[in-house]
Amino acid sequence: MITCFGALKERILKDGKCLEGGILKVDGFINHQIDPDLLEQMSVEFIRRFADVKFNKILTIEASGIAPAVMLGFLLHLPVVFAKKKKPSTMDNMLTTTVYSFTKNRTYDVCCSRNFLCRGDKVLFIDDFLANGNAAKGIIDLVQQAGAELAGMGFLIEKSFQHGGDYLRSQGIKVESLAVIDSLDNCRISFADDSIAC
Amino acid sequence: MITCFGALKERILKDGKCLEGGILKVDGFINHQIDPDLLEQMSVEFIRRFADVKFNKILTIEASGIAPAVMLGFLLHLPVVFAKKKKPSTMDNMLTTTVYSFTKNRTYDVCCSRNFLCRGDKVLFIDDFLANGNAAKGIIDLVQQAGAELAGMGFLIEKSFQHGGDYLRSQGIKVESLAVIDSLDNCRISFADDSIAC
Repeated sequence: MITCFGALKERILKDGKCLEGGILKVDGFINHQIDPDLLEQMSVEFIRRFADVKFNKILTIEASGIAPAVMLGFLLHLPVVFAKKKKPSTMDNMLTTTVYSFTKNRTYDVCCSRNFLCRGDKVLFIDDFLANGNAAKGIIDLVQQAGAELAGMGFLIEKSFQHGGDYLRSQGIKVESLAVIDSLDNCRISFADDSIAC
Repeated sequence: MITCFGALKERILKDGKCLEGGILKVDGFINHQIDPDLLEQMSVEFIRRFADVKFNKILTIEASGIAPAVMLGFLLHLPVVFAKKKKPSTMDNMLTTTVYSFTKNRTYDVCCSRNFLCRGDKVLFIDDFLANGNAAKGIIDLVQQAGAELAGMGFLIEKSFQHGGDYLRSQGIKVESLAVIDSLDNCRISFADDSIAC
């Protein structure tokens, strides 16, 4: 069952902006300006949803994933690793993968040091958006290369009409998204679960 | 008086790595893997050091500034804005400035929406490193363009031998750095304040 998280849904309806081409702007509270109190509420909700899963590390990808990952790591006292979109000249012992971005119509490399993503690690991946799932697939590749285990994937907002979530769930991955949007057609925000309780 | 923050200094000595060319690697606890508990301690220290300053917003720059800025914003219940190094296609009402990176020997644009950096805002800027101060100068430019006020600038680590801090302090800006390194010569980490109390 898809359920969404009331506090975030309300905030999306209040401050989110829908642009042409299936774009949802949440730059007032998630990915340019951040509301740390909402961030805490969202992290608490992730803790509830992943309560039955064991993990020892939070993994994310720069830049917009860092804030939710750090808040969750703080509440759980777990280290947070952020994969980088550019290879730092000083990174050694590196894992890399290539991700295709539909939005930007180009590929980019994502990399992570083996020093911090290790065999035996059980990682929970956190990011702001799940759309077509290409970044998530890149993360799965990095986790596999490292010999680590993916405990689950948590997203603040899933655009279910872009079907990345379908793919990840079909792979048996536990995926939790705090707000699931099933259409942005005609610049109207439609949530997958429109029940009042949501 | 330059003072440094004991918990961070100890961690730098334990897990920091000094590379050729004045580079200090802190990717095990600050800018690739993050230790959220240390992050909290550092934010508490910023709160102490900026206790006499009024501000209503935390400003930082992606990507490594996000974690310390979010933690500080969370503890103070203040919004956090991160300036971006690439112009998002959906950003409107934008402020931009150009920053020259000595490390990478190239310029890059830094941008921020006027919607979130506004006339009348009093902002505390937070970042992981202060070296030659070029990114900080770009931020000062953005703050001035917005008609906002810079309440202070806080850095986790200052490399005082690269003199960005001298410039910022000469402009009358309150600058606080939690660890001040005055030399990385011969791949040895030397702190500006080597007293036992530090």
